[in-house]
Amino acid sequence: MDERLGRQIGFLQEVDRLKGVLRRSYVLAGERRENAAEHCWHVALAAVVLAEHAAEPVDVGRVVTMLLVHDLVEIDAGDTFVYDRAAQNDKRERERAAADRVFGLLPDDLGSGLRALWEEFEARLSPEARFAAALDRLLPLHHNLWCHGKSWQEHGIRLGQVLEVNRHMAEGAPALWAHAEAAVEQAARDGLLAAE
Amino acid sequence: MDERLGRQIGFLQEVDRLKGVLRRSYVLAGERRENAAEHCWHVALAAVVLAEHAAEPVDVGRVVTMLLVHDLVEIDAGDTFVYDRAAQNDKRERERAAADRVFGLLPDDLGSGLRALWEEFEARLSPEARFAAALDRLLPLHHNLWCHGKSWQEHGIRLGQVLEVNRHMAEGAPALWAHAEAAVEQAARDGLLAAE
Repeated sequence: MDERLGRQIGFLQEVDRLKGVLRRSYVLAGERRENAAEHCWHVALAAVVLAEHAAEPVDVGRVVTMLLVHDLVEIDAGDTFVYDRAAQNDKRERERAAADRVFGLLPDDLGSGLRALWEEFEARLSPEARFAAALDRLLPLHHNLWCHGKSWQEHGIRLGQVLEVNRHMAEGAPALWAHAEAAVEQAARDGLLAAE
Repeated sequence: MDERLGRQIGFLQEVDRLKGVLRRSYVLAGERRENAAEHCWHVALAAVVLAEHAAEPVDVGRVVTMLLVHDLVEIDAGDTFVYDRAAQNDKRERERAAADRVFGLLPDDLGSGLRALWEEFEARLSPEARFAAALDRLLPLHHNLWCHGKSWQEHGIRLGQVLEVNRHMAEGAPALWAHAEAAVEQAARDGLLAAE
């Protein structure tokens, strides 16, 4: 096998480990936690289905590719809970080191292109990145709604925190944020998470 | 929430069930079977990384979208083992009924577009479909290699069957098939699957 194909296949072998990275969300039936690989599939499919709700015109293919790679750094850095402020402090540093290694497995042209897409996503620097980031919040929020607030309750998350952490959805997908905000406020009234 | 957005979100809720559809492949560490949702992520990412090996020029975005939806019918129809000839007989009928229901959850314009992409994939009617179908064989084959033939051995699969079932990879990605064919033949010599 030539060296280039060897590096491509080696990368695909290594990223299989993302299937072992557990998130705080539960799959719909609520019987087990979601892993990062199946989350990436779900959110990439959401980009296809919800593209019309992007705040600005987006290249859907770029959004999808961005979402396919957006969590690869978690293979080394783990999933950082969005409501864990302490863990957020060194998240950037841990994830940069992971990106060096994981994207570095690929041939340079491919690896640097995908890494740039990841950086764009993290910094929310483009319409595509802002829309992708909105979808990346939309799904965990809905997983909580679908599972009757299970993960919110386990971690003592309050309405104010949910609104604060997810509000940036409005930049990438205002209609989706309007819907999500109303649904979360209703969930608080229904007792699925603490209002205060 | 308007009716259109409601159908889009309802579809995303329903397809979460793909995370509960188990395949015959094992995740890399070999400790559990792979589910169809994480497989879809893996194979869509493979399309991004291996696009240069397509037999003909392809629209990578179309290939990726095709792969994100290619197993949705398994929510109703289950995963049909590629080496199970009896189950292959009524697979088409079971999957068509599933496609009616699952793609039918979406607004008509979106649902019919994605369903057409699934039909194209199934029939291998375009360069994109042939390349996607090749990748859909490449990964399970490599999962078996990475897990020392675990799934082949569990189901008594022989070298001749692997070559027969996977040979269509050559239509969509000849270089990937050449590599895979050599790797499987080596695996048979190493005793990971029966040569006869």
